[in-house]
Order: sequence, then structure tokens, then C-alpha cells
Amino acid sequence: MQIGMVGAGRMGANLVRRLLRAGHKCVVYDRNAESASELVDEGAVVVESLQELARSLESPRTVWVMVPAAVTGRVVDELAETLDADDVIIDGGNSHYRDSVVRHNTLAQRQIHYVDVGTSGGVYGLERGYCLMIGGGPDAVERLDPIFRTLAPGTEAAPRTPGRTGVTDTAENGYLHCGPAGAGHFTKMIHNGIEYGQMAALAEGIAILQKANSGHAPRVNDAETAPLADADFYSYDLDIAAITEVWRRGSVISSWLLNLTAGALLHDPQLNSYSRQVADSGEGRWTVQAAVDVGVPAHVLTAALYARFSSRGEGEYADKALSAMRRAFGGH
Amino acid sequence: MQIGMVGAGRMGANLVRRLLRAGHKCVVYDRNAESASELVDEGAVVVESLQELARSLESPRTVWVMVPAAVTGRVVDELAETLDADDVIIDGGNSHYRDSVVRHNTLAQRQIHYVDVGTSGGVYGLERGYCLMIGGGPDAVERLDPIFRTLAPGTEAAPRTPGRTGVTDTAENGYLHCGPAGAGHFTKMIHNGIEYGQMAALAEGIAILQKANSGHAPRVNDAETAPLADADFYSYDLDIAAITEVWRRGSVISSWLLNLTAGALLHDPQLNSYSRQVADSGEGRWTVQAAVDVGVPAHVLTAALYARFSSRGEGEYADKALSAMRRAFGGH
Amino acid sequence: MQIGMVGAGRMGANLVRRLLRAGHKCVVYDRNAESASELVDEGAVVVESLQELARSLESPRTVWVMVPAAVTGRVVDELAETLDADDVIIDGGNSHYRDSVVRHNTLAQRQIHYVDVGTSGGVYGLERGYCLMIGGGPDAVERLDPIFRTLAPGTEAAPRTPGRTGVTDTAENGYLHCGPAGAGHFTKMIHNGIEYGQMAALAEGIAILQKANSGHAPRVNDAETAPLADADFYSYDLDIAAITEVWRRGSVISSWLLNLTAGALLHDPQLNSYSRQVADSGEGRWTVQAAVDVGVPAHVLTAALYARFSSRGEGEYADKALSAMRRAFGGH
Amino acid sequence: MQIGMVGAGRMGANLVRRLLRAGHKCVVYDRNAESASELVDEGAVVVESLQELARSLESPRTVWVMVPAAVTGRVVDELAETLDADDVIIDGGNSHYRDSVVRHNTLAQRQIHYVDVGTSGGVYGLERGYCLMIGGGPDAVERLDPIFRTLAPGTEAAPRTPGRTGVTDTAENGYLHCGPAGAGHFTKMIHNGIEYGQMAALAEGIAILQKANSGHAPRVNDAETAPLADADFYSYDLDIAAITEVWRRGSVISSWLLNLTAGALLHDPQLNSYSRQVADSGEGRWTVQAAVDVGVPAHVLTAALYARFSSRGEGEYADKALSAMRRAFGGH
Repeated sequence: MQIGMVGAGRMGANLVRRLLRAGHKCVVYDRNAESASELVDEGAVVVESLQELARSLESPRTVWVMVPAAVTGRVVDELAETLDADDVIIDGGNSHYRDSVVRHNTLAQRQIHYVDVGTSGGVYGLERGYCLMIGGGPDAVERLDPIFRTLAPGTEAAPRTPGRTGVTDTAENGYLHCGPAGAGHFTKMIHNGIEYGQMAALAEGIAILQKANSGHAPRVNDAETAPLADADFYSYDLDIAAITEVWRRGSVISSWLLNLTAGALLHDPQLNSYSRQVADSGEGRWTVQAAVDVGVPAHVLTAALYARFSSRGEGEYADKALSAMRRAFGGH
Repeated sequence: MQIGMVGAGRMGANLVRRLLRAGHKCVVYDRNAESASELVDEGAVVVESLQELARSLESPRTVWVMVPAAVTGRVVDELAETLDADDVIIDGGNSHYRDSVVRHNTLAQRQIHYVDVGTSGGVYGLERGYCLMIGGGPDAVERLDPIFRTLAPGTEAAPRTPGRTGVTDTAENGYLHCGPAGAGHFTKMIHNGIEYGQMAALAEGIAILQKANSGHAPRVNDAETAPLADADFYSYDLDIAAITEVWRRGSVISSWLLNLTAGALLHDPQLNSYSRQVADSGEGRWTVQAAVDVGVPAHVLTAALYARFSSRGEGEYADKALSAMRRAFGGH
Repeated sequence: MQIGMVGAGRMGANLVRRLLRAGHKCVVYDRNAESASELVDEGAVVVESLQELARSLESPRTVWVMVPAAVTGRVVDELAETLDADDVIIDGGNSHYRDSVVRHNTLAQRQIHYVDVGTSGGVYGLERGYCLMIGGGPDAVERLDPIFRTLAPGTEAAPRTPGRTGVTDTAENGYLHCGPAGAGHFTKMIHNGIEYGQMAALAEGIAILQKANSGHAPRVNDAETAPLADADFYSYDLDIAAITEVWRRGSVISSWLLNLTAGALLHDPQLNSYSRQVADSGEGRWTVQAAVDVGVPAHVLTAALYARFSSRGEGEYADKALSAMRRAFGGH
Repeated sequence: MQIGMVGAGRMGANLVRRLLRAGHKCVVYDRNAESASELVDEGAVVVESLQELARSLESPRTVWVMVPAAVTGRVVDELAETLDADDVIIDGGNSHYRDSVVRHNTLAQRQIHYVDVGTSGGVYGLERGYCLMIGGGPDAVERLDPIFRTLAPGTEAAPRTPGRTGVTDTAENGYLHCGPAGAGHFTKMIHNGIEYGQMAALAEGIAILQKANSGHAPRVNDAETAPLADADFYSYDLDIAAITEVWRRGSVISSWLLNLTAGALLHDPQLNSYSRQVADSGEGRWTVQAAVDVGVPAHVLTAALYARFSSRGEGEYADKALSAMRRAFGGH
């Protein structure tokens, strides 16, 4: 079917490519004309304004918005000005689900459908397919089924869950209508919250492996330094790249993130080429806020988020406060 | 090759089966004769004592010990009494790596080799193969290669890591000689520490999903209860079984544990058939102790461990202390 | 000076008493007439409606609202209907600071002043005085100085901070104008966040003391139970009431909460008379949300909050999910 | 009574001073002769070797050892060589309680008493008195009562706990015989564990206060940065020195650590003169290990410890691992 795409960055461009390869027709707009132009050779029509985008699409129109969360609101507002009743706007970005609910309700007053689609898969999605978590009204979601089916990985991406029989459902194809407006971004939010936790668990584990030889390091013997008990038991020089590789097969922790980690360590075992400052793009925060709102203990997901804050030096004032207290009571 | 197995519980029996199917010869001893006897039909020789086991094996002998960590020490001591110089004892259980180091050094005085093998895979290992993390002297480890190669999953268990070329190494086959005595159990310890973290991340995330409808629940309006802000935004009745299923394909968090979780939720979405008391078998604790020893922050792995303590009610005294303080200052 | 009080619960009644004892005139309204009537003998005027309250106060009026956060909004709205320009409403309860900002701005349109006062001290405040954290416009706050000075503990409550000289400021008297609208409740929110952390630190510590004899407990030797290493080192039967008492003098952790804890343990060392369900009244949650918003790692404050959630069984679904995974991979 | 002191550092010298002022006789040895010599003018006898120390003391001798935990073992061994049956060695330092148990048992074979005394109070102890947590045999501990009574703060240091009547016990004077060998250091270990938690709770709270104006900071609008929701609600420029001062009076979180913090902030509100690297001297780690051993969830105490590790950059490898994963899946 025909679809408009607003935003031809890394994610948007690959969505277009995957759609084009399956025979869908794509009209693309990006305020940075260069980003979009690459897609022309691959079969996309590129336009230069939202107005032109609207004119280029047959009614009822379908427009997928794939822009940073911080600008989604503005883009959706401008886009909606160009659309008519029964058109569909899809927000495939990392919007806060509450914003999606509000936008859905606002647009509903003009009979414009709003569908929120949490989209996971990263740069690998082009080949591997995207996991799509969808929220919105049933009519609009159903109308978009050909798009979702194309973008999703399909059943072959994982062995069938034992106990499932008969025709595969959409979840088994990698896309799911999770519920009404916001439910897609809510589910994606939790997905990313879990992702933060999984990443942190793996990172902490290999960081201990990396220190498995710390019994060899010289230690200071003063009142300010905790002695290393049993230094003899920390004398391993471990090959972390090989260990993450071996874990990929048969272990309980085999996962896609482990695959990526093994790949990164193969090329740079000391990880020297990577920054220690780790960004967070919102969902981890919103997940914690949801946990707090509904009263569910989420120690792990929260600790994973805070580790990112710490990685960026955000704990500095608190650390200095600890030093101030220590100096005050101990004269350190 | 020929191998003795001490312990025919869930894990030991399946190791024997996988070895037998590949043509190895297995002599099995379990103090519970019944456990072992099931294996006779599948080709194992079953014996009734450690002495008989030793007599049944050709020199140099290889004996794999697969018993609970709490009894490994005693079993190894008794077994060693029956063995001779150049024989090999393999500890495939969940021993503390420090115990393995000590046992290795003790047995080395009698020229008995001691190889520690962290074994991951659970009940699925029989079909899927086991991930083997190996510590010990190079000669003994090399001698055991046919055993390890049989038990491990093999290269097909995962796509090749991009950048790897040429002949596959043992890590790519699912087994790895990690280092000297204890290195196998050290690596397995960290594996399980990560496993705890991964499990907790997933569990916390789906627990928030499960409360996504808590805006519908009635709330008390007293000074003791935090009001739910924005109850309207928590009105989703989510199908968690379907969500974990959709995450299996194309998402960043796809993993083997997610596969298992989706399977469990398919059959029991409310998880009513499961206990809320979660055991821990040692490695999670040792991982935390290692993190503390070497000074690596491990918030996530530790929180995952403590969540298990809490699940068993171990926080009760602390909780009551909080209530005592609150009553004291607030008259609550 | 003259002041109206809306709410004669535990906190409101004691505020009135402390004001009356210092010669202020108090007019009290509580929708539960009985609560207020107790105060008549102590010199308060009790009225039966907000309208009567407004009529009983001289202009410009001052009314302190001391009701549960969940009903503050409604009470303030109704109260404001009865007031005039230049009157002052004080919210002394545990409102979310954002609500206070919104209420301040709404009432400002009618020239009614709104002052948010975080009030700490609990039932001891009557004798000990209340710590007051104040937000709002400078004129209104200045006008209320006699009230605040009476309610606050005064300089004698703590030794002077070394380096402070000259006339004491209000902070040294136990009250502080923290900033514009909301700043009082913001500061109180963080105060309570810290309180949760302090309480949890103490509770966790004494819970470990209480288990210092766990080396004596029998242990199961199965693959599901972590063995207690070095059981001999956990053979202390400690007198926790005596320990908290000794910590009150000279130790780094001496504090008011410790005083209360020692008192509670004196009467009930096993804490059997206390519930293990610990409520939270909002500020701990808002503190975490603020930490997440501004990107400051707050592991301790958050863990303290989650411990309360766990104490109420909110981790149940996550715990069962862990059991489900364990059963799936391990056959446990 | 007469006592020998080994170690005239910050802590040892002040213990000597407090003892001298109360009329006790002190013989002091420090391998750094200069440290000890300052004490001569205040009435101490200074000696130049452990042998001389032993010769200078009447039998049965009492020697207090106050040296860094990392050298206590060696010092005690050397000291014991110079002593006789029925002499007492006190370890007042921050030793691991397990080491104290072992030393106690070793020295018991020679009828030398070993008493472990956890000593809290820091540099303020000279004036304020020290909180003493004591382990060891009842005879030796009783013999030392005059020493302990002098060093402890005495009853006036805190108001009597309601419900306590009659003659004050030693806990009310600030010293306590907690139990047999090691019980003193065990209790001190938990004390410090709690101290870490209290400090971290306070530090995290004021760190949020310090960011209360972050709504004013410019933000980047890209897919990598979490937007600050509701920036308007983070526009407070708070005076943290004044806030910690006001909390000292009447609030639930008033404490000695708060007093010190208010003092530090008075002189340096931005804490620019303090290091962000926070040392840990062992007890925090041992507390976590004890929690793990006995199976008590200790989220707060552990997070406080890990925050110190993070402050020293120990999370670097883990952070880089997160960046590696993010780059791998997202092309960031």
C-alpha cells in the first residue's frame, strides 16, 4: 500500500527501504533534503514539504512520523494541518505514551486517526525486521496491517513457542496491537526499561570479569583503603571476548544483546574506543516513573537508569557531599 | 571416550544421555540407586559404589562429579581415595570457585587432576547442548576435549559473530578453557550473576505491565496512602503473554529467557501456579561478594539477588523496624 | 496573631495547641466536629463551616489548611470561595509541590496569597517544635513570621553550627523561606525522601544484626539452597535494643530516628507488635520522580521507597515470574 | 588505671588525651616517633619499641592497638611476643571481625586476652566521647571498665530513652559489651554500614536540591537525550546550606551527620573544595558480605557502598560496555 514517511534519519530511512523492497509505495519528507534524497534511487518519491506530502498521497492517507521525541509534537501538529478526516498518522518514534494519548484525543476531534507504534530493532531492523508494539483504535490499526506485516520480522525469526498451535497470530509475526491509544508506546517504554536492565546486568558482569586479576595490583595499606581479602583468589586474566562468545551457545543468558557484545569485544576487548558517557533517551526514565506510580518495586530497572546518570558524572555533587562529611567527622 | 559420572540427578543423567548418544561409554554411580538405574536401558553401566566405579574405569580415569555444591567436598574426598595419579576429577556442579581452587591444589599433591566445569543449560541441555566454562591445567583439559565437544551445543547454535573467520575455535562450539583452577567456576558464577540480573529485569518489566490498569483500582484518601497521580494514564489491560511473544522477534531484548517466559505466560498468564518464593543457589551471592572484593559497582546484580531474599520474606525484621519508627514519630 | 485552622487531626490539633500556648488566637474548623471540639478547652474557637471560619477572622485573614494531600485541592477550592483579596492560605500538609505551584498561580488571579509549608516533626512537634520549610511570595511569608517563629523549635534545639556568628537567622530557629511557590513543599519532599533513606539504612543494619546468629540455624543441603559459608562466624546473639542505645552516644550515626528506634526496641526487641506492611505517603515517590527528571542518581532513596512497596507484597507478580523462568529452564 | 597505646595517629592520640585528662596513665608507642612525642607534654610516657612498651607496663598489662586494619595483624603478632599470660590486647581499629575472632583464639592459647573494640566518634571523640562496641571474654572486658567509662561520652550525651528507669547501664553511658570475641567489631561493622547508608541518603537528597533549577539549563533536542518534562517545575535556586541548617531543628532527619553537613555547606555551598573520589575503609564491604551471607536484603547499604566505588571511576568498564552495545544496535 501507499505510505508517507516524515523523517529520513537512520530509523526512518530503513523503514522506507524495508517497505519499498516489499512493493509498498513510499513518499518521503525530511526537512534535511539530503537525507531523503538517498532513497530516490531505491524507489521512494521524495517531497519538499508536508503540504506536498499530503498532496502526493491518496485518501485516506497514511503518514508515518519518525522523528526525535522532542520534536514529534510540533511535527504532528504541522502535519495534521495538511490532513483530512479518516487519514492516519503513525508515531513510530520514542514518544512518551502520555503524549501519544493526548495527541490521539486531540486529533480524534478532527476524525484523524492516531496510531502509536513502538519500534524496536535498531539498525539491524532493515534486515532482521522490526518488533512493532501498536496502540490505537482497531479500525486504523487493522487498515495498516499490510505495513506492519512487512516491517515485522515474521514467524521464522524465532522458533515457535511450545504449546502454540494453528495459524500464527500477529505476535508470532513480530507485531501486536497492544491496546488503545498509548498502549504501543507504553509497551515499548517497558521494553526499553527491560533493555536498560539487561544491558546493565551484562555490563556489570563483564566488569567483574575484567577485574578478576586485581589480586595482582599493588594496594595501599592506610586507614582509608579497604584491603583486598584473599588477593590470591583474584589472579585470573580472563579473555572476555571469548567468554561472551562461549555464552552465546547453550547458556541461560544467550540473547541478542550478548551477540552484539561478543562482536564488540572481539574487535576491542578493552573497549577503549567507547565513551564512558552513556546517554538515555527517555523510556528508561518513564519506566521508573511508571513503576513508582503503580507501586511496583523496580530495583533493577532503576539501578540501570541511574548507572547511566552516573556514567555522565551526574553524581558529582553527592560524591562531594560524602567527602565533606568524611572530612568533617574524620579529619580525612 | 570412557567417563565415570557421580550423580544421576536431573543434570547428571542428561549429561550421561548426551554422551551416550555420541558413542561415549559411561559408568554411573548415584547413592540413590534408582536414579542411576534408568540410564541402563540407554547404555550406561551402573555401579553401586565409588570403589566399583574406580575399578570399572580404565586408567587414566576420568570422573565427572555432578552433585549439589553442599556435598561436593565430601564426594570428591571419597572419590579421590579410590583414584590414582594422572586420573582426572571434573566438578561440573555449582561449586564456589574458591573451593575448586583449594580442591585442585590438594589433589595436585597426589598428581590427581582437578578440572572445574561451569555447566549451563538446564534441562534443555540434553537437546540444546551445554555451555561449558572450564578451569584447570592445560593437559587435563586438553585430554577431555572429546567430552566437552560432545556436551557443548556446537557452532550451529548461534550465527557466527561478524568478524570471526577461519576455523571455529572452541568458544564458537560452546566450550572454553577459561584459565587455571577455579576459572571455570568463576566464569560460571558471573554467568549466573548476570542470569539473575536478566531474569529480574524481565520480571520487573512485566510486573509493571501487569499493573498498567491500576488506574481502575479504588484508592483510599488518607494521609497514609500515596495518591495515584494521573490515574487515567493507567487504564490498559495488557495481554502479557502476547507482549512477551511479540518481543521474541526483532526486539532488542530477544533472548532465551524471554522465550521461556513467553512459554510460561502462554499457559498461565496470571502466573498463579508459581511460588512467590524464589530460591538462590549460591552463584548470585558469590558474584556480589566478588564485586565487593574487587570494588566494581554491581547495583543490578545485587538488587536481583536481594529481590530473591525479599521474595522469601527475609526483609521482615527490617520492614517491622520501619513500622516501629513510623509509629514512634507519627503515631501511625 | 489570629489564625484559622482547617483540619484538627493529629497534626492540625497540635499546631493549634502550640500556637494557643504562645498566645495566638485560633479559630478551628474540621468537618468532623468532634476532632475540633477537644480544642475548645484549650482556648480555640471552633466553627462549623468554612463560611463561618471566614466570618470569624479579621481581614486580612490567615488560614492554615492541614488535611490529607488527597483532599487538599477540594478544601482549598472551597475555602478560597469564602476569602477575599490579600487573605493568605497556608498549605501545611504533604501536598505535591507541583500542585502547590498550580494552586498558588490560580489563587494569585484573585489576589489571594498561597503559602506552602512543609511541616516536619510528627507527634513530637507539639513539645519539640516543627521544622518549617516555606514557599511563596515574600510579602505573605513575612507577614506570617510570628506564626512560624512560634511553631518552630527555636535556636536551643541544636548547638550552633561552628562558623555561624551574630544574630541567628530563621533557619537557626527552625523555619526557612526556601523560595517562591512550591519551594517549601519541594524541600519537604526531599526531606522525606532522605527520611525514607535514613530509615531504611537503619532498618537494614539492625536486620543484619538480628541474623547474626544464623550460623546456628539448620540448613538444607540441596541444589536449590545457597550454603552458608563460615557458619561459625554467625553465632552472635546480639541485644539489638542495647546496641541501638549505645549508638545514641558518641557514634557517627546518632540521630533522632535512632533515638526513636532504641525506644521501640526497648519495649519490643523482636518488633512483634509491628506490621510488616509499610505505607508511603507520596513524598518518597515524588523524590524519586524528581531525581529521574533532573537526572541525579538516587539509588538509596529509591531503594528505600521500593522496600516499602515490597513490604506490602507489590513484588509478587515479579517474584512469580522468576519462579516461572526457573521452573522452565531448570525443572525446579 | 595504666594503659599502653600502640599507634599515635589521629585516633590513637586523641584516645590517649581523653584518658590522660581523666587521670589514667598512658605509655605510647608509634613507629613514627614524632607522632607520639606531641603527647609527652600532655602527660604521656613515650617509648621507642614494643619491647620497651611491655617493660614499662605493670602486670597484668593492658595495651590498646590503634593502627590501620591492614597492619593490625602484624602489630598484634609482634606485640604478643612481648606479653605474658593474663595481659590484655585491645584492638580498637577497624579490623574485620573475623580476623578478631581468629586473633582472639590464637592468643587464648597463650592466655593472652584479646578484646575487640569498635570505636566510633572520629576527631570529635576527644571532646564528645567515643561510642565503644566491645567483644571478648567477660573477665577481660570487666577489668577494662574504667578505661571504657572514661572514653565513652557518658549519659548526658543524649536524653534518656523513655521507659528506661533506675541506674543507667553501660549502653546509656556509651559503651557496650556486645558479646564474645568479634562481637565488638561485628557491631561496629554494621554501624559503619548504616553510616554509609545515612551519608548516601543525605548526599543524594541534597544533590537533587542542587539540581532544582535545571529547568533553566538549555537542552539538546536529539534522539539521544531524554527531554526534561515540565521544565517549569525545576526553577528553584535553593540555598542548600540554609536548608540543611533548618533541618537540624525539629525535623525527622535531624542527626549528627546533618550537623556536620550543614557546617561544611556553610563554608562551601558548592562543595568545590572537596574531592569527588570517596574512599571506603572496609566495613561497608563487610556489611554487604554479611548481608549476603545471612540472606538479608540490604539494598540501601549496598547502594551506598557502590556509590563510593562509582565515585572513584570503578564503573568505567561497565559504562563502556553499555556504549558498545548501544553503538552496536543503534549505530549511535
